[in-house]
Amino acid sequence: MTPSDRAQLALLLEVAGEPKPGNVDRRRDVPGLRFEQFLAGAVGAREGLELAESGPVGDALETAVAGMADASGTNTQFGCLLLLTPLVRAACASDGDLAREDATAVVEATTVDDAAAFYRAFEHADVAVRDPPEGVDDLDVRRGADAVPAVRERGLALSDVMELSADRDANAREWVEGFPRVFRAAARVEAGDGPVADRAAEAFLALLAEAPDTLVATQHGEAVAEEVRERALDLQDADADRVREFAADLVDRGVNPGTTADLTAAALFVALERGVTVRA
Amino acid sequence: MTPSDRAQLALLLEVAGEPKPGNVDRRRDVPGLRFEQFLAGAVGAREGLELAESGPVGDALETAVAGMADASGTNTQFGCLLLLTPLVRAACASDGDLAREDATAVVEATTVDDAAAFYRAFEHADVAVRDPPEGVDDLDVRRGADAVPAVRERGLALSDVMELSADRDANAREWVEGFPRVFRAAARVEAGDGPVADRAAEAFLALLAEAPDTLVATQHGEAVAEEVRERALDLQDADADRVREFAADLVDRGVNPGTTADLTAAALFVALERGVTVRA
Repeated sequence: MTPSDRAQLALLLEVAGEPKPGNVDRRRDVPGLRFEQFLAGAVGAREGLELAESGPVGDALETAVAGMADASGTNTQFGCLLLLTPLVRAACASDGDLAREDATAVVEATTVDDAAAFYRAFEHADVAVRDPPEGVDDLDVRRGADAVPAVRERGLALSDVMELSADRDANAREWVEGFPRVFRAAARVEAGDGPVADRAAEAFLALLAEAPDTLVATQHGEAVAEEVRERALDLQDADADRVREFAADLVDRGVNPGTTADLTAAALFVALERGVTVRA
Repeated sequence: MTPSDRAQLALLLEVAGEPKPGNVDRRRDVPGLRFEQFLAGAVGAREGLELAESGPVGDALETAVAGMADASGTNTQFGCLLLLTPLVRAACASDGDLAREDATAVVEATTVDDAAAFYRAFEHADVAVRDPPEGVDDLDVRRGADAVPAVRERGLALSDVMELSADRDANAREWVEGFPRVFRAAARVEAGDGPVADRAAEAFLALLAEAPDTLVATQHGEAVAEEVRERALDLQDADADRVREFAADLVDRGVNPGTTADLTAAALFVALERGVTVRA
């Protein structure tokens, strides 16, 4: 398997992991999002993930997002792809033992063109985001390609753009900080045993307990995000049925910790790169 | 999406379809086969499915099977790939409205080299098959590459090899007869509504009721295969929970109608080629 194969498999194992409270998983669809749309999103993202092996990270991301949205009809995995594209590139540049430094080197090498492609990616999918920081309204990602002139005028690389939202988006924070949570969760997946999808669900619950999910904070406020984190912490060693009750409650309330799922997919990719397999 | 994208998606939708009695599905693993291994098999088969778009069908099949087995660690989808490789090629040659004649043309164009690659494919995965017909022991697929000299000496194309087992393997019969059951099941998927994976499960149950599953006949005898067919027929309009009881019973008995799953995957591919999508 190639890095793009493993990235695609990471997307599939992430959505298969169960129970993954508030998210689509092997047992559960959520209103407006079906399991099969995530399968199609993983298929559609393929071309972009292959591009990430050799081409610019920004183009790879835009292509992956466009393919995902075309195949699934919705935004199934934008955040996952934002994390996976630099990690795929890093895996190709690494000596077979993907490490945080490899990922940081990819982030640091991003350009203004990568930033422009990142903004264009928002034209293909409906992504929930918060307002931009004060003074940079012209860089609001919701402007899509219309923001590109401002990006070029300010000379911002994609890594600079990520810094702008690192305080409000856990995926951007991973970019800026060298993917610390992704690699910690990957180590947990590597250390685990049993089916990889089960380990993905455990990694998800641990990530959810570690910090408030920033998509939940965007959609429901910081207090709800913190409440979800605390409940996930209480459930760290609970049996699956108790976690499923939590899952049902979150779905009933429309609370979807999607950023934590993104981190889980990225962690799965790193673990697969480092030797984890689904082989018996 | 390309034909190879749709073939990969067909593999994923097939395993997601639930309830699919006796087989791995979205809710159920079976002893020795986990859902996640089918996800990995679909990823690993990708390179071979892409080859089927332009290269020889036999090489495409061998590559797909080798990739599937490497990624999943087992034989998850050999039969699916035997049906999908000629259908992917046919889709590329068709004018966008894939029909049985396109598939038949691909079968008729197969060569001795395709047959040799087919035999080599058995070296990569453990496939349950019956004894060959009398007088052709030298063509037993279990001989793998060792059978290739006999194939060449007899000048058999892959279509000829399929004729040898058409009376005992429903997949070979599809090859020989121009994929009648696959296209009928595809029409059922096209005519349905709701999630495509649910339609896949309905198509599976209809196919199971239509004729005895030849893998079940190989592993458990004709009487068991006929009993399974009759029970599937009784359950055509039953609610999902009654079908799930049947599923649990088959798994308890180790009865796995795998050939019917192969036909379902192929039908999904044809339906996707003819315009079915998972988009809302």
